[in-house]
Amino acid sequence: MSAPQDSAPEAGSVPRRRLFQGAVGGAAAGALAVGGAWAVEGSRSSGMSDPADKDAIDLTTQYPLYDQAEPAGIRTPPQRYAIFMTFDMSAGTVATDLQSLLARWTAASAQLMAAQPIGQVQPTSDMAVGRDTGEALGLDAASLTVTIGLGPGLFDTRFGLAGKRPALLTPLPALPSDNLSAGTSGGDLSVQVCSDDPQVCYHAVRNLARMARDTVQTRWTVMGFGRASAGQGQQTPRNLLGFKDGTRNISEAADFATYVWLRDAGWMTGGTYQVVRKIEMNIETWDADRVSDQEKIFGRGKSAGEPLTGNKEFDTPQFAAQGKDGKPVIAPTSHIALAAHENNGGVKILRRSYNYTDGINEFGQLDAGLLFISYQNNPAHFVQLQRKLGAGDLLNEYIKHVGSGLFAIPPAPKAGHYIGEQLFAR
Amino acid sequence: MSAPQDSAPEAGSVPRRRLFQGAVGGAAAGALAVGGAWAVEGSRSSGMSDPADKDAIDLTTQYPLYDQAEPAGIRTPPQRYAIFMTFDMSAGTVATDLQSLLARWTAASAQLMAAQPIGQVQPTSDMAVGRDTGEALGLDAASLTVTIGLGPGLFDTRFGLAGKRPALLTPLPALPSDNLSAGTSGGDLSVQVCSDDPQVCYHAVRNLARMARDTVQTRWTVMGFGRASAGQGQQTPRNLLGFKDGTRNISEAADFATYVWLRDAGWMTGGTYQVVRKIEMNIETWDADRVSDQEKIFGRGKSAGEPLTGNKEFDTPQFAAQGKDGKPVIAPTSHIALAAHENNGGVKILRRSYNYTDGINEFGQLDAGLLFISYQNNPAHFVQLQRKLGAGDLLNEYIKHVGSGLFAIPPAPKAGHYIGEQLFAR
Repeated sequence: MSAPQDSAPEAGSVPRRRLFQGAVGGAAAGALAVGGAWAVEGSRSSGMSDPADKDAIDLTTQYPLYDQAEPAGIRTPPQRYAIFMTFDMSAGTVATDLQSLLARWTAASAQLMAAQPIGQVQPTSDMAVGRDTGEALGLDAASLTVTIGLGPGLFDTRFGLAGKRPALLTPLPALPSDNLSAGTSGGDLSVQVCSDDPQVCYHAVRNLARMARDTVQTRWTVMGFGRASAGQGQQTPRNLLGFKDGTRNISEAADFATYVWLRDAGWMTGGTYQVVRKIEMNIETWDADRVSDQEKIFGRGKSAGEPLTGNKEFDTPQFAAQGKDGKPVIAPTSHIALAAHENNGGVKILRRSYNYTDGINEFGQLDAGLLFISYQNNPAHFVQLQRKLGAGDLLNEYIKHVGSGLFAIPPAPKAGHYIGEQLFAR
Repeated sequence: MSAPQDSAPEAGSVPRRRLFQGAVGGAAAGALAVGGAWAVEGSRSSGMSDPADKDAIDLTTQYPLYDQAEPAGIRTPPQRYAIFMTFDMSAGTVATDLQSLLARWTAASAQLMAAQPIGQVQPTSDMAVGRDTGEALGLDAASLTVTIGLGPGLFDTRFGLAGKRPALLTPLPALPSDNLSAGTSGGDLSVQVCSDDPQVCYHAVRNLARMARDTVQTRWTVMGFGRASAGQGQQTPRNLLGFKDGTRNISEAADFATYVWLRDAGWMTGGTYQVVRKIEMNIETWDADRVSDQEKIFGRGKSAGEPLTGNKEFDTPQFAAQGKDGKPVIAPTSHIALAAHENNGGVKILRRSYNYTDGINEFGQLDAGLLFISYQNNPAHFVQLQRKLGAGDLLNEYIKHVGSGLFAIPPAPKAGHYIGEQLFAR
């Protein structure tokens, strides 16, 4: 089976309330919802009732894979659950194995996103194994998206694809914050699966991994959970340091065009680059820190998320403002000062991260952190920001980058075609 | 702080559709929803549209902790996400430490279940640390429940509580399927937290662990995900072997009274016993097995879940029925034959399990399984069933019990009191 099924899925139903008012809704996967201008400052401590909280997750939402302006799972409003997994091509595999895998993964992804099994669960023959493992039978798609990435290693000498290497797909350089483990870094291929239903999410990853068993070996995985906020209101999510994270994330269509999607990039036009970092957080140490110090480290208030120079979350930070002591109100080494586009020549990246937990570590402490995923049309933009953050960020006392990966995300496939098909065009 | 806050939470709002028609709705936490008689046979492979699928998760649902007929998180319709964690009392702690911990945990659980932080996120004093870690600010309870259990070790000589030991709380005996690791077994205290929002779920566990840091050490944890099916329709969930699991689970009020809740049990009256098993599944090996063999192992069809002697999921299995070859249609060593109450002197237990994944194992295989949790008024009922299953179950080729724990679940607290308070009564 080396060609994708030509089964265009039903048009996705995107409930109106999922569309983000402040952005121009793309024809693609709905509009970005992180850090939108109408996000509310919900606070449980204040006891205020927040209309955006009083919502429900619609499990019937489906997103289409084929014939979209953008690949799925990037501008898509963040679902509550995510699994990121990378794979290496097995020894001895050749270009047609990769080609077949991408074709099969594409067809299966379209089926999964349409809430369909990828083949028979209960075959008619007594001698047959199931094509689909079955645990998602009867479940809705719950906004499932599959995003497939190509690692730099695919363009080495193994597959004769060196001439097709995306122009900016070279491994990330060493960065000041790196504390990387080989066991949680790299990979020839990446799969990002997101859904509002964890069982649907795991079923998708499992079945994609299973159908690829003849071609790839698993490398590493992180299971992320919903830092998206209650309901589909999608107020700014919070990370496990308890702070809003994403207030100044990309939300305008113009920024997507300028900073996320590739233009004039040959076969990669319409695609992007995916940076993944597994960032361990020493949450027990963090929790012992004074909140006033935490706020200095972030440059924002903890409850409402306002910049220390402002009153409301979406007030623009005033990095030049000084206090009575003549010192900057927002420390130049604070997280928001270092990451701000004003202080980085305008550079922006789209962050689409999830929290994760690995349970309890060897010291008996809670083992948790951030599955950082960013999308940008130039990996150097991430490198620029991370060089600054890794060198100067006050947060570095509490976090550690333990995993890393860079992948090229091809443009969305046309019906009857498959993701990355352009690699194999003569 | 040794007494719980006297803050009775608002009465929980239980949407009508969460109530299970076939059972008598208890005053407590809604009625059981697993394996109900109106559960539908949703099948994605059939392409049928299933009305129960077209549903949404209402994130505003809250359950009360105080003044209930039953402890929370047992009969409660299974939420999509669960974290189970156990703790050991630290060396040198005394009875009043345990007493204070149970009081604080009770008060905090009530706050969390009412979608409130357990204290200030952003204290007024610059010198203060936060009482609540903040990442659930603005989020709904999403049906959060906290269930606290007492391990056998609490009743050894350390705390002078030997006289209060629940009558049947002795460590589980060795069982034929055991492959237990000390690192995933036992514990002085257990915490089961369930919610439809993973961030709310993790926030609750984290804050309960954090406030207990002066008293306990973490021991082991498993993060489970929603084997409950789409929406609140709550058709029978599926495990990661792809089969429906829970078709014959307890659902009648009479069965709860007979098999789950303790009667005439002194201070434990109205409580129950919690058995927890971490069951590793070799899902990659399972996936390579013929479906016809899988069905023989379970004794049921894979898609619809019908017993091999019937046509529909809820048909009663006919264990005596023979095929043309004179052999039983449902093998006596099949999972449903060994576990059936008809073959176990009528014994039933309430199963409330979740799937889990630990990512990728040392061999590069998907590492996943079942967080098995059962509630019964006599742990010997679990032992009886597991002795049979562990010795004869055809499933044993594919599963391994790697973790185990037994805990007593005290009755629900009255307002102004706390869970396990009866332990300290003179």
